[in-house]
Amino acid sequence: MPAQVITADFGPRSYNLYYGSGLFGLLCEVLEDAKIGPNILVVTNRAVKNLYGERLVQSVGARRVRWAVIPAGERHKNLQTVARLYTSCARAKIDRQSAIIGLGGGVVQDIANFVAATFRRGVPFIQIPTTLLAQVDIGIGGCAVDHPLGKSLVGTFYQPRAVITDLDCLETLPDAEFVNGIAEIINKVAGLGGRLEQLNEDMPNILARDKTTLLEYIIESNRIKIAIIQKDETGVSGERLALDWGHTLTYALEKVTGYRMAHGTALGIGMTAAVMLSASLGYLPRQKAELLKQTVQLAGLPTSIPQNIDLGSLLAAMRLDSKAKEGKIRFVLFKEFGKPFLCDPIPERKIKDLLTELKAPTPKQRGKRARRL
Amino acid sequence: MPAQVITADFGPRSYNLYYGSGLFGLLCEVLEDAKIGPNILVVTNRAVKNLYGERLVQSVGARRVRWAVIPAGERHKNLQTVARLYTSCARAKIDRQSAIIGLGGGVVQDIANFVAATFRRGVPFIQIPTTLLAQVDIGIGGCAVDHPLGKSLVGTFYQPRAVITDLDCLETLPDAEFVNGIAEIINKVAGLGGRLEQLNEDMPNILARDKTTLLEYIIESNRIKIAIIQKDETGVSGERLALDWGHTLTYALEKVTGYRMAHGTALGIGMTAAVMLSASLGYLPRQKAELLKQTVQLAGLPTSIPQNIDLGSLLAAMRLDSKAKEGKIRFVLFKEFGKPFLCDPIPERKIKDLLTELKAPTPKQRGKRARRL
Repeated sequence: MPAQVITADFGPRSYNLYYGSGLFGLLCEVLEDAKIGPNILVVTNRAVKNLYGERLVQSVGARRVRWAVIPAGERHKNLQTVARLYTSCARAKIDRQSAIIGLGGGVVQDIANFVAATFRRGVPFIQIPTTLLAQVDIGIGGCAVDHPLGKSLVGTFYQPRAVITDLDCLETLPDAEFVNGIAEIINKVAGLGGRLEQLNEDMPNILARDKTTLLEYIIESNRIKIAIIQKDETGVSGERLALDWGHTLTYALEKVTGYRMAHGTALGIGMTAAVMLSASLGYLPRQKAELLKQTVQLAGLPTSIPQNIDLGSLLAAMRLDSKAKEGKIRFVLFKEFGKPFLCDPIPERKIKDLLTELKAPTPKQRGKRARRL
Repeated sequence: MPAQVITADFGPRSYNLYYGSGLFGLLCEVLEDAKIGPNILVVTNRAVKNLYGERLVQSVGARRVRWAVIPAGERHKNLQTVARLYTSCARAKIDRQSAIIGLGGGVVQDIANFVAATFRRGVPFIQIPTTLLAQVDIGIGGCAVDHPLGKSLVGTFYQPRAVITDLDCLETLPDAEFVNGIAEIINKVAGLGGRLEQLNEDMPNILARDKTTLLEYIIESNRIKIAIIQKDETGVSGERLALDWGHTLTYALEKVTGYRMAHGTALGIGMTAAVMLSASLGYLPRQKAELLKQTVQLAGLPTSIPQNIDLGSLLAAMRLDSKAKEGKIRFVLFKEFGKPFLCDPIPERKIKDLLTELKAPTPKQRGKRARRL
């Protein structure tokens, strides 16, 4: 499979995204193009280093690779890890003629991006995402780390020099992590790109990890995100808000479960909520909403809020959402897929009804509801 | 004195710099223009809050001011202070409709700028510099904090929404701090702007803190820096290197004295070194170099390296300067003032001779040199 390339256009900060199989070999050329000298720091975690470390070292030419292995898991995406990475950068003599490579999933990409943005006021950064989620939802400049008082409270916008997306990395990915990534494909390609029917048809090939299909959907997801961010790099003009569709309930679910619920799982429920709300407010035809929900289910993702989650806590979390206006909850909704819009504040009663409807019914409740209907 | 205004042109991130006396009253208008909501966090230190806190609070309209008082001094410009400030931001509910105000000297401006750049991926930032040094050498987007392994190792580029330079703040400034700022005026206006003779003539008025004269030179210094940074915001194309003139020996002096030597003091010696070297390499007429040295002395700044400083340590520090190429020292030099250029690597013997010449002679050495001459 020959490599495919797309370009993210940010003027003098433009860069290429490369896609294909067996792509680590491209790294040397990418480093040459970016005029990177002898020093490379790779930020990764233990498992990913074991899988791809050797392949990476063989692809950097005569350069010296230093490793910064950080613990896996969202809870290490914090300022302590950032401070330790600054020390790694200083010891590896990272400067503007060097590169930081992020080799791993979303946590590694986020934290390596932030460190590259802020070490010596910014050093060259190359992304090699190794999970489907990180490949589909690559940051395109945005990065954030957590703070004890809030998730993603600290961050910035800083474009990489290149992104290398090697589909071979997906072969070893556990199913649960793979499905996480599919949620973001649905989010981008169906929601923002409007290609729901096609995606629904192709879902079996995606689940079978067919590389041609995956390649198409990863590139399409990236294209959609890049097009939005090129128009609104730092969230000033508002176009960037579109990326938030499906995430209002998602963030609340992650928060009330202490981030034990996987992002893709939460997003499956969050996207279902957004399209059901779009339908019940009369914006979107109900059968379109149902088709999106069915596509989420086809991917193996949940569409109901687990029984043990308290709806009051969810509502409280949603009132703190960045789109909320004076404590009133707002969603990104659809009149048709491909054209998201930020709605006016929604009466809280409407949202309570929605959450109640979304809660996975126990057998007893199911009986009750059936009688009521 | 009516306020004067200049604009720093960074496209959609352009902003105004306001200059004059009694300018705190402008703050409310500036906050309105920037559409800042009810929450304001002021980063400052105790002494500055005592002097100007009341004036600031009276100038923000109905907004609620929260204070983040950080300890004074360069040694607190580190990641621990940054982390504490993120907590202050979260508690003050700072978001994109809020503002962080930096009220103070260079340390406060640097650290508040970095926090504003990275809290929630960037929140509005307003600078009110209160020392002559901070007013003359305002960051124009550049900011950095220190790391145990190196000074200014962590930082970024992030433009403020406005800069308010109130000359009244200079009335209470101790002489030693005031002279620090004059060093940067000489650096910008004489070195980069080419107006050495005029500045030499005006030095008595500057030392008398005549507001009209100070206003002219502060604005001129800012204009010169802005013009350079507009061309090369993040140090990519090289124009920004001009700002480094006089700083090669300055940084080395600060380093070997453990940052106990004030920046202006070190810069007096550093600028003298650069012009003497320009002359001894045949680039700059000697009498021009002498006039700059004399202007530095007129300002009350030293032009000789103190006896107790080891020249070997200075050389070692200069080899690590960011302009050094493969361990060979490079300086920004002049053929004429106003036109700085980055020279080729200089033979170390030349630099040793220069440092020896610059070392303040003891009476005995003075006798020796007189004989040699």
